[in-house]
Amino acid sequence: MTTAKRDTYTPETLLSVAVGVFNERGYDGTSMEHLSRAAGISKSSIYHHVSGKEELLRRAVSRALDGLFAILDEEHARVGRPVDRLEHVVRRMVEVLIAELPYVTLLLRVRGNTEAERWALDRRRDFDHRVADLLRAAAEDGDVRGDVEVRLATRLVFGMINSIVEWYRPETRGASGREVADAVVRLVFAGLREE
Amino acid sequence: MTTAKRDTYTPETLLSVAVGVFNERGYDGTSMEHLSRAAGISKSSIYHHVSGKEELLRRAVSRALDGLFAILDEEHARVGRPVDRLEHVVRRMVEVLIAELPYVTLLLRVRGNTEAERWALDRRRDFDHRVADLLRAAAEDGDVRGDVEVRLATRLVFGMINSIVEWYRPETRGASGREVADAVVRLVFAGLREE
Repeated sequence: MTTAKRDTYTPETLLSVAVGVFNERGYDGTSMEHLSRAAGISKSSIYHHVSGKEELLRRAVSRALDGLFAILDEEHARVGRPVDRLEHVVRRMVEVLIAELPYVTLLLRVRGNTEAERWALDRRRDFDHRVADLLRAAAEDGDVRGDVEVRLATRLVFGMINSIVEWYRPETRGASGREVADAVVRLVFAGLREE
Repeated sequence: MTTAKRDTYTPETLLSVAVGVFNERGYDGTSMEHLSRAAGISKSSIYHHVSGKEELLRRAVSRALDGLFAILDEEHARVGRPVDRLEHVVRRMVEVLIAELPYVTLLLRVRGNTEAERWALDRRRDFDHRVADLLRAAAEDGDVRGDVEVRLATRLVFGMINSIVEWYRPETRGASGREVADAVVRLVFAGLREE
């Protein structure tokens, strides 16, 4: 069995196992021994694929970050009024978060104790700033309310979106990714109260 | 110094030290030894005040929970249209979270590995249900939008509010508790978009 497993192991499946272990034990609390046991292959087999757990972290959070940054290149994020571009970005952030749930979960839990973690936090901060810029542009157009400070509004909207990783479970029947994205867009842009 | 400290120690100051250690190391990762070192008093002095770390956890999360449940007894949470009562509860939740920041932070990080933690999670769930009931009543009145499912809306609103513990720091100049509460109420009830 072990041999069969080893033969079919790809960097992709190893990454998926590693992300699960990182999310469960925390990145700091995960050793190569834990990864080896979870993957069912020897440590030296892991080193055949990657240089160590730092590389696995970089690959895993890159998958989340690349998905998020790709949103900003989509046509609806580039063309049109800032408020509509912002709405597109918020919707797609929820969709990417749900499509890449374990990877985004890991990204959001990174604490900055090692160089790879600090690199991830920096890229995450870059993304946050890009979204804040869009909100600022929409406020300057008078398309979003002026009585909530841009940085505070950005934090609260990110807070709502990021909290989805705490409860969304694809395997249980419940709201689909699309339904959650619709709900977030409605709440963030139009609010709860029926006028 | 140690003697002076021991003499002035009260259950209140011990609780405040313990909450700091729990939030930093995690409740599971905290031993009586850690608490003794952080408080600068011996373990037996701690046992003079409390039966152990479970009691400290219960007292700490009770302070957060009592603050939250007290909101529901306030006049504006009991009298009036459900949508207005809900708005009052949301505003006060943010204010209590900020006033009792370390205690609410601990409550939100509890994972349910011990009996005391499961008891805290149960009480937290009761509170969530009380707020969801208010949202449901407001939806039945037609005062909140009907196109976002009540449970999903509750989770997203709680997600936004609870995320405040991740970035709010009373010691740095920035938004006051009142400003954050205003921002949350505006976003949750009226949304970002200027009509």
